Amino acid sequence: MSNSPGTALRDLRAGKPLVHQITNYVVMNETANATLAIGALPVMAHAAEEVEEMASAAGALVLNIGTLSGPWIEAMLLAGKAANRAGAPVVLDPVGVGATTFRTETAKRILSEVDVAIVRGNAAEVAALAGLEAEIRGVEAIGASESGADVARTAGGTLGVVAAVTGPVDHVSDGKRTTAIANGDPLLATITGSGCISTALTGCFAAVRADSPLDAAAFALAALGVAAEDAARDAWGPGTFHARLYDTLHALTPEALDARANVAEA
Amino acid sequence: MSNSPGTALRDLRAGKPLVHQITNYVVMNETANATLAIGALPVMAHAAEEVEEMASAAGALVLNIGTLSGPWIEAMLLAGKAANRAGAPVVLDPVGVGATTFRTETAKRILSEVDVAIVRGNAAEVAALAGLEAEIRGVEAIGASESGADVARTAGGTLGVVAAVTGPVDHVSDGKRTTAIANGDPLLATITGSGCISTALTGCFAAVRADSPLDAAAFALAALGVAAEDAARDAWGPGTFHARLYDTLHALTPEALDARANVAEA
Amino acid sequence: MSNSPGTALRDLRAGKPLVHQITNYVVMNETANATLAIGALPVMAHAAEEVEEMASAAGALVLNIGTLSGPWIEAMLLAGKAANRAGAPVVLDPVGVGATTFRTETAKRILSEVDVAIVRGNAAEVAALAGLEAEIRGVEAIGASESGADVARTAGGTLGVVAAVTGPVDHVSDGKRTTAIANGDPLLATITGSGCISTALTGCFAAVRADSPLDAAAFALAALGVAAEDAARDAWGPGTFHARLYDTLHALTPEALDARANVAEA
Repeated sequence: MSNSPGTALRDLRAGKPLVHQITNYVVMNETANATLAIGALPVMAHAAEEVEEMASAAGALVLNIGTLSGPWIEAMLLAGKAANRAGAPVVLDPVGVGATTFRTETAKRILSEVDVAIVRGNAAEVAALAGLEAEIRGVEAIGASESGADVARTAGGTLGVVAAVTGPVDHVSDGKRTTAIANGDPLLATITGSGCISTALTGCFAAVRADSPLDAAAFALAALGVAAEDAARDAWGPGTFHARLYDTLHALTPEALDARANVAEA
Repeated sequence: MSNSPGTALRDLRAGKPLVHQITNYVVMNETANATLAIGALPVMAHAAEEVEEMASAAGALVLNIGTLSGPWIEAMLLAGKAANRAGAPVVLDPVGVGATTFRTETAKRILSEVDVAIVRGNAAEVAALAGLEAEIRGVEAIGASESGADVARTAGGTLGVVAAVTGPVDHVSDGKRTTAIANGDPLLATITGSGCISTALTGCFAAVRADSPLDAAAFALAALGVAAEDAARDAWGPGTFHARLYDTLHALTPEALDARANVAEA
Repeated sequence: MSNSPGTALRDLRAGKPLVHQITNYVVMNETANATLAIGALPVMAHAAEEVEEMASAAGALVLNIGTLSGPWIEAMLLAGKAANRAGAPVVLDPVGVGATTFRTETAKRILSEVDVAIVRGNAAEVAALAGLEAEIRGVEAIGASESGADVARTAGGTLGVVAAVTGPVDHVSDGKRTTAIANGDPLLATITGSGCISTALTGCFAAVRADSPLDAAAFALAALGVAAEDAARDAWGPGTFHARLYDTLHALTPEALDARANVAEA
């Protein structure tokens, strides 16, 4: 079981990879804390003057378009290309794709100019990127015409990436192999940034599993899911759940992750 | 009692309105989480390229000038006008007006170019906007020459908006009718962003009470106040109060809100 | 004992100084809440149009380069010079110096154009600023060739500032006198922004001890350290520790701070 979620978590904690994140203003603190809690090192940097140098030094790069503007797009492209040159995997979170033309076109531009390893979004966002029917309200998926597994499979194949579609059950697919991850808790949907946290953790695992992005995505979602199950146990609602989530990510052991990860072929 | 706070909360949870927020960096996560906790959907977007499209799709627009800069002002004006065209109510939070000329002039410019339904601020901010005497230190009200009720009444009349002035007792007024809301807890004043949260919640209620902004503002402040009373009960201080506040906003029932809202003509 | 940590805390709570912070997106909410919890008033403002007016009204100015970009650098320089003219102490947090050329050069530029009273960083950041050998991964100190005390002493002397180097034991030095502060808890290192919080608190104490920056820095680090010890007692991990930290900063009494501050000449 050399490539189990727990083994990857052990590697992550031993290597403490640097995960460069160009992400949205809403969740920067949250994704930085989740990155630290799982055992990696976050760094946020978005200036054109430094993103190439920072991305080149990182084990993975996370691009999240949640609060876009022109200069940030240029920085994402520069950083993405630098990460590609350095061989560091790039993870894209297409927040709100489908809600505005600007977001949809920016996500597509990043996909066309940067070699993205993993796209992590909700069913509506990933469906919109892959040209499928979907309904989104702001950044919230209202519906997609196909199941999460089908969206992941189609997007993985069409976009040439690993597509990670999160929801009550998560699905990751490269278009050929599809995996379902059935961990988590409904409280995840009550806090902002839980999707962005799953993307940041995907970056953490990608940094130690650069050669198998499908595993990296599945392991990250299992880790977040198991930690969410633990956090929900002592939570009174979204606020205490949120605080507890960093406790439980930090306390998660490789053994517990292997024992409880509910990952299966779909 | 078809327009009670609880009825509005029930409508809000049924309709899940999208509340577009162009707000400050300090509180984005907090206002997004409060919006989710009360039952609406937040979206943050500030690029000129997308704010009109996003505001047009929203049930309400919140403009908060807490960390202003030139491009954000342009985006606020574009979004405000788009919300006006779409018939979505606009709520303005004039953070720090009176502290710098830049903030005062920006708030006045927004009020002159956008049809603002509700202005929510502390007594010093709203007084400064209405041309009354006030003392502010940074973004904290030190004093206003008139009572909160008088500030709200004068500002409501002068500015042609519903003025919502928060403090130990909150007052909302359109210049003619004035309502006092006596819910809340002193711990609200110990965390940053509690004012901004009240503005975001005002946006949520305005989305389901677009035709009665006076009620929307009063109901939002009552909802936050009752939730704060609940959060304070289990809090050890500002940090645990803050976490609990999202729990209690989420757990707030329409029945409890109607039973406990302390709203009266002033 | 007219200049004990507790006496300074008492002055801080009585005076409620305004602390203007131009800081990074990741920690703005956290440093604002820590500033409020200790008893001062935070204000975030970064627009060139208003930073001079805001800094002139403040008791201290905090400059933190954690998420730099061009316009923010210009604002930091304008605000720094305005604070200098107004006699308000300036505290610099050189986040990530050594990680990219852009950060290193920006921190040096600020030091050359603004009269900085206190530099607060980790050993690698402060060492890099002072021209010593250091290893940094993103914003995390991996190693410095010299001890924290030596880094503080050399940087204090070379840069002509008070250097505050935080770590398991903190050291502050003006190049001649060096003080060690042995309070705190390892959980501080598990949350993002604990360094930035220590810088913000340094600004709060500097506002009431403008004539003795060495004391201001030591007192701030002792206050955070004692509060962290209290927060750790009831924490299950990083998330609950983080929430509790604002409780315990708020509950910290001058008497407890004087009794428990572990401050000694080094």
